[in-house]
Amino acid sequence: MSTETVAVQLGHRSYDIQIGKGAVRNLDTGQRRTLIVSNTTVAPLYLDHALAQCAGAESIVLPDGEQYKTLHTAQSVLDHLADNGYHRDSVLVALGGGVIGDITGFAAALYHRGIDFIQVPTTLLAMVDSSVGGKTGVNHAAGKNLIGAFHQPIAVHADLDTLASLADREYRAGLAEVVKYGLLGNAEFLGWLENNAAALAARDADALAHTVAQCCRDKAAIVAADEREAGQRALLNLGHTFGHAIEAHQGYGAWLHGEAVAAGMMLAARMSARLGLLDNADLQRIAKLYEALGLPADPPPIPPARFAELMGRDKKVLAGQLRLVLLRKLGDAFITSDFDPEALDATLRDAA
Amino acid sequence: MSTETVAVQLGHRSYDIQIGKGAVRNLDTGQRRTLIVSNTTVAPLYLDHALAQCAGAESIVLPDGEQYKTLHTAQSVLDHLADNGYHRDSVLVALGGGVIGDITGFAAALYHRGIDFIQVPTTLLAMVDSSVGGKTGVNHAAGKNLIGAFHQPIAVHADLDTLASLADREYRAGLAEVVKYGLLGNAEFLGWLENNAAALAARDADALAHTVAQCCRDKAAIVAADEREAGQRALLNLGHTFGHAIEAHQGYGAWLHGEAVAAGMMLAARMSARLGLLDNADLQRIAKLYEALGLPADPPPIPPARFAELMGRDKKVLAGQLRLVLLRKLGDAFITSDFDPEALDATLRDAA
Repeated sequence: MSTETVAVQLGHRSYDIQIGKGAVRNLDTGQRRTLIVSNTTVAPLYLDHALAQCAGAESIVLPDGEQYKTLHTAQSVLDHLADNGYHRDSVLVALGGGVIGDITGFAAALYHRGIDFIQVPTTLLAMVDSSVGGKTGVNHAAGKNLIGAFHQPIAVHADLDTLASLADREYRAGLAEVVKYGLLGNAEFLGWLENNAAALAARDADALAHTVAQCCRDKAAIVAADEREAGQRALLNLGHTFGHAIEAHQGYGAWLHGEAVAAGMMLAARMSARLGLLDNADLQRIAKLYEALGLPADPPPIPPARFAELMGRDKKVLAGQLRLVLLRKLGDAFITSDFDPEALDATLRDAA
Repeated sequence: MSTETVAVQLGHRSYDIQIGKGAVRNLDTGQRRTLIVSNTTVAPLYLDHALAQCAGAESIVLPDGEQYKTLHTAQSVLDHLADNGYHRDSVLVALGGGVIGDITGFAAALYHRGIDFIQVPTTLLAMVDSSVGGKTGVNHAAGKNLIGAFHQPIAVHADLDTLASLADREYRAGLAEVVKYGLLGNAEFLGWLENNAAALAARDADALAHTVAQCCRDKAAIVAADEREAGQRALLNLGHTFGHAIEAHQGYGAWLHGEAVAAGMMLAARMSARLGLLDNADLQRIAKLYEALGLPADPPPIPPARFAELMGRDKKVLAGQLRLVLLRKLGDAFITSDFDPEALDATLRDAA
């Protein structure tokens, strides 16, 4: 299988995403001093392989889990860089899932006010979503990703081989972000997913190659049009305001991000139906796809008032107004703060 | 005395610097939720005044001093924002000197991946240098400003009235950055400074107004041409690689930044003379100006090997090569990594 390249067009910050089996073999940091950041789960599997690609590279291995996506962990990476005299022409490599990518990119954004970094995503979620687009950051007790920076990688190497080792639950969580691209703006891809759900659930290599490349193309187009999320990029947050509230309520790491997003997208769909935008058949199509992919359709029980309060802390609140991504139809999302609050309350009450 | 406005031209990130007596009266954050960040020295003098300008604003008062310019202090600002539910359309106001401006700008850069902030510099150094240009950040035990971000303010209000309350030592430290603009690229201004040193040392209002406006114009032009320091902006680091080593060796806060920069610029001048670029008369001109302004011409005693090691940690090291800003002549600086290392060693030996 060949490697496919998707270009992210961002002027002088443009970069390529390489997707394919063995894509990590193209990782190359030249003669530059390199620090590879990984975690205790991924390092035993792929760190030696990555170190072999980058002559003289060092590594730092962080604990695994969303609960470690903190300023404290980011500081441990910054301390390592500073205490060992890394310079502004050094390179960081993020070898792992979304948490490793977010922390590593954040450290790269801050060290010397910004050094280069490369994403080597090893989870489906990181490949199709978090490794592309330059959003980096850490969580705060008061909210997810509240502290961060926009900092684009100089390259992304998505090696499909790494998906074979992914735990079932993590793999399925990644499929939630895959479904997101279909729901928010690509009805054709949504149809393809419905037709190929069994192959995808079974990690069929061809289905995966098509899926990762399609999601990266969709994300690259959205990011290129709106790098700093002044407008349409916020569509990528479909399900996320609901989802972040779920993650915050359960405690980071209890629900995987993708699981929370899956339940969150379903809540967005139900609220859209309540507003007369979707019909029951639409909701059933989503539910059927979720079932085929093993995604949770329902949030954990959360008191509606608490759920609403946690949503109010989300970054997407503007001028005190909650902004939500809702569905006009399947494959067509929109951003609004102009909705009947009772529709939200009723959706949360029904789910509790 | 009227307020003078200097525009910093950075496309959609452009902003105005307002300079004049009472300029803080133009501070206005509209209806937006506002947090004013100040320190224990400045707050008793000007915080009430600033709060009165921004209806409903809250404030946070940090300990005063370069030794508090840490990730830990920045986190206390971020915690305040997150724990109190500030949103991405909130505004931070930095009311204080360079340390407050750097910490506040850094917190603004990170919160929600970047919220607006306004600089209200109350020291000469902050007015002529650190409040303009978008460099934000904190120190690390291993080096000054090692952790930071580029984040432009949306406005700068330099109220000359606040300079009256500045301690003598801090005021003089600010004059070091003033002299820097003359030395690095403005021979005419350097001559003006020599002719008006007595008035400036006495904080004459007209001399100060001219000085602050001239420095801001020079800095605005340099920043507009090279926002991210890809090239010529590094000229603003004249004296800083030497100076940062002095600050690191003495312990942050022992030598004021401006004092270290003054001694550092003199070392750069002496090294330039050693390389045959300046002559003795040039060095004497600088020494005479320093004397009139009360600036230290000599660094504290530091073993040359230690001095060189600390300089090697500076952010301006590229590909393992130390880059220095040297003087081709007075009023004409250049950046180079191609110098005789013995010239640096001898300069440090002579100063020890």
